[in-house]
Amino acid sequence: NHFIGIDIGSTAIKLALVNEHSQLVGVHVTDSGSLFHKNAREALRVLLEKHGLQREQVKYVIATGYGRKLFKEADDSISEITANAIGAHEAGKAFGGVRTIINIGGQDSKAIQIDASGNVSNFAMNDKCAAGTGRFLDVAARNLDIDLEELGDYHFNGKGAPLSINSTCTVFAESEIIGLLANGHGKEEIVAGIHYSIAKRTVRLAKRVGIEDRIYFDGGPALNKGLVAAIQDELGRELVVPEHPQTTTAFGAAILARSEFLSENRED
Amino acid sequence: NHFIGIDIGSTAIKLALVNEHSQLVGVHVTDSGSLFHKNAREALRVLLEKHGLQREQVKYVIATGYGRKLFKEADDSISEITANAIGAHEAGKAFGGVRTIINIGGQDSKAIQIDASGNVSNFAMNDKCAAGTGRFLDVAARNLDIDLEELGDYHFNGKGAPLSINSTCTVFAESEIIGLLANGHGKEEIVAGIHYSIAKRTVRLAKRVGIEDRIYFDGGPALNKGLVAAIQDELGRELVVPEHPQTTTAFGAAILARSEFLSENRED
Ligand code: SF4
Repeated sequence: NHFIGIDIGSTAIKLALVNEHSQLVGVHVTDSGSLFHKNAREALRVLLEKHGLQREQVKYVIATGYGRKLFKEADDSISEITANAIGAHEAGKAFGGVRTIINIGGQDSKAIQIDASGNVSNFAMNDKCAAGTGRFLDVAARNLDIDLEELGDYHFNGKGAPLSINSTCTVFAESEIIGLLANGHGKEEIVAGIHYSIAKRTVRLAKRVGIEDRIYFDGGPALNKGLVAAIQDELGRELVVPEHPQTTTAFGAAILARSEFLSENRED
Repeated sequence: NHFIGIDIGSTAIKLALVNEHSQLVGVHVTDSGSLFHKNAREALRVLLEKHGLQREQVKYVIATGYGRKLFKEADDSISEITANAIGAHEAGKAFGGVRTIINIGGQDSKAIQIDASGNVSNFAMNDKCAAGTGRFLDVAARNLDIDLEELGDYHFNGKGAPLSINSTCTVFAESEIIGLLANGHGKEEIVAGIHYSIAKRTVRLAKRVGIEDRIYFDGGPALNKGLVAAIQDELGRELVVPEHPQTTTAFGAAILARSEFLSENRED
């Protein structure tokens, strides 16, 4: 028996496949595009094919994320906060357990505090302002004409100190970045400055919920090692970054899919 | 004897020329560009030439705005808030006197309350977030591929009701605008929606300082009749919009230049 969690975000669709022992069997990530629903169904098909599974072998599917309501194929749906907490709690066990989750998404950022059992005890979220979200990274990468995936390398290759980006607003920061480039500053130092700008906002958000070790960092931007370094520097603490930071929330939904299925089909 | 106020903003440089009776003789507006200082000097030269004046005939120059510190040719400088209050108080006399000033600039927005003598009694300012500033109009006009000057006409030419723009963030609103276009909505209804979005924020800012009649609206975006209509609708009151809304602050600086000169050169 297999179980799937599908996290339909504003930027990407993420899937996680687990077996009946709650072990992660595989993940799949694809762009959300404009046809969420169609792309989500296709992504599910690709994941099954990749692992040689038939649809019937997947007993339960839980959807989460921004587009979860539009995905009718799921057996149930759950909020991102809860799914992220379940996923981070489970994945965090390998690191000795985590109590704070920092999630940076394509269009939002969250800080979640969980107790020792993985229940959400507090959370804070920003989904109103693009600053401090993945969107700021997209915009900045475009202004600098470099790929999103290259940001991490640029961060560590600067000869000088990170430049400060004074505008907290993404729109005003764009002009600042263009001005810094025009004044001959290096892309490396600008990228590091951008990472520190996001790091400062992220740490402020995390402080609102209270920071307890260990701190788990997930969401697509957690793949960016430069951003990870900047947040660690601002926090003065280490972060636990999982191997697949994009799919923690989908993994949490898959874990829940398994337990919901088991409780519905318990043989008493 | 003549006096000049020069308002060096992030987007435009505005100059006002007054005579010894505090009457407005002429104005000049030009882009700030990247060389503020050079462009300000050139703008001053152009204004003098336009009115057949020699530099010596201008007895006193006061600079205001974002770039005022960089303009060494001025005899003195003053904050935008004070200059705007002086200018609106003076210009407002023709309308029976004004007590509230709403100013939308290229990168900020302000609400200023003045007493019957024109002194600032309260003010609120947003210069941290592009939403609710002229920048949002620039970005939206670019997304819609229409000129800034055309926004007013689009506003009034819609066949349907203004569309609501749900994102308060300029960055997220950009995606929303692109989505509305993709779904076949008319630019007219989108433009009206944008104006209402800015109007709502503006009224919220004005309420923070307290709104007393009459309400004077200045800054470049006050040239946009669609935005004026949207703000009036949200306020449920009329606005006083001067003929040259861009130069009220420069006018205030010029008025002050005259009175500083007169008090320094008083013959007792
Ligand atoms: S500060 Fe900038 S990024 Fe944040 S909400 Fe305002 S416009 Fe958007």
